[in-house]
Amino acid sequence: MEILKERILKEGKVFHGNVIKVDSFLNHQIDPVLIKEIGKEFCRRFGDRGVSKVLTIEASGIPVAVMTGLELNVPVVFAKKQKSANICENVFSSTIKSFTKGTASTVIVSKEYLSNKDRVLIVDDFLAEGQAVLGLADIIKQSGASLVGAGIVIEKGFQEGCKRLTSMGIHVESLAVIKSIDEGKISFDI
Amino acid sequence: MEILKERILKEGKVFHGNVIKVDSFLNHQIDPVLIKEIGKEFCRRFGDRGVSKVLTIEASGIPVAVMTGLELNVPVVFAKKQKSANICENVFSSTIKSFTKGTASTVIVSKEYLSNKDRVLIVDDFLAEGQAVLGLADIIKQSGASLVGAGIVIEKGFQEGCKRLTSMGIHVESLAVIKSIDEGKISFDI
Repeated sequence: MEILKERILKEGKVFHGNVIKVDSFLNHQIDPVLIKEIGKEFCRRFGDRGVSKVLTIEASGIPVAVMTGLELNVPVVFAKKQKSANICENVFSSTIKSFTKGTASTVIVSKEYLSNKDRVLIVDDFLAEGQAVLGLADIIKQSGASLVGAGIVIEKGFQEGCKRLTSMGIHVESLAVIKSIDEGKISFDI
Repeated sequence: MEILKERILKEGKVFHGNVIKVDSFLNHQIDPVLIKEIGKEFCRRFGDRGVSKVLTIEASGIPVAVMTGLELNVPVVFAKKQKSANICENVFSSTIKSFTKGTASTVIVSKEYLSNKDRVLIVDDFLAEGQAVLGLADIIKQSGASLVGAGIVIEKGFQEGCKRLTSMGIHVESLAVIKSIDEGKISFDI
């Protein structure tokens, strides 16, 4: 997706350990016009697959998921990162490791919002090692729903996520695939 | 806003301590079509005030803020609830108490995304005691930006938030104001 890659090149910041920050339009400040175009692109790629729900994880996945849900005209569910006083006990849960933060967290989805009749599209902002998508896929499996695929905004192609997910039969569509980050310079595969 | 109130009456769940859950369309599962209408309504109410940025807090405020930013054609910034390994030190911060959860948390906004040239609209899903808006207003003040007002989806009119914010000169627009919750029955002021 050219307009996305242009923004990554223009505004992306590279940090030690192959960390890329796109806080100016995706992860902290959000450009709603760009995110709407991303939603349209996911709709173009997954619109003929009978998606009944979009699933993501709070917080950075939410804008993209909401715009994708709007284009597909289906509800969006976001997995919550920790149990709050306000959520009932009746939940699916899974544990997700974060390589960036070096932590593990439990994510939950209420059993009310996923069922064995659903066809679920996972949407997320980044794909690196694939742990977030695996956690969401685990929740989808628990619910008995079908996993249609995973729509990723930015994939780190030099990490194992896409290979890992594809080997499990998960259809992955990434809008920008970063091939390498050499001396702070980002280059793309797709 | 009639379609919002109808959804609250139809799907809202009341719990002990005047807690209302609208997890089926706003806080866990999201109805993007309704949220888009909410964004349009905030645009109608604040569109002539020169808003340059929409500010909210992760996670539940994000969908509404993104749709409002789309309608106003301005960027959206979401305050993050805790310091992550991925955010720089160069931040504005404020502490927010949650009456629902009985906790206090620090929220941060990078100094890159708010400046004294900005005219900021705060958007949030709920207004109860007003602590979240006060925390965001504090961050706006630190940045030197102007606070245009606060757009609230659901106000608990029987709590002190609106009165507190209004007495500080903050213009509050709530799309649904709950007057009371008696024996699980919700009634509205507006």
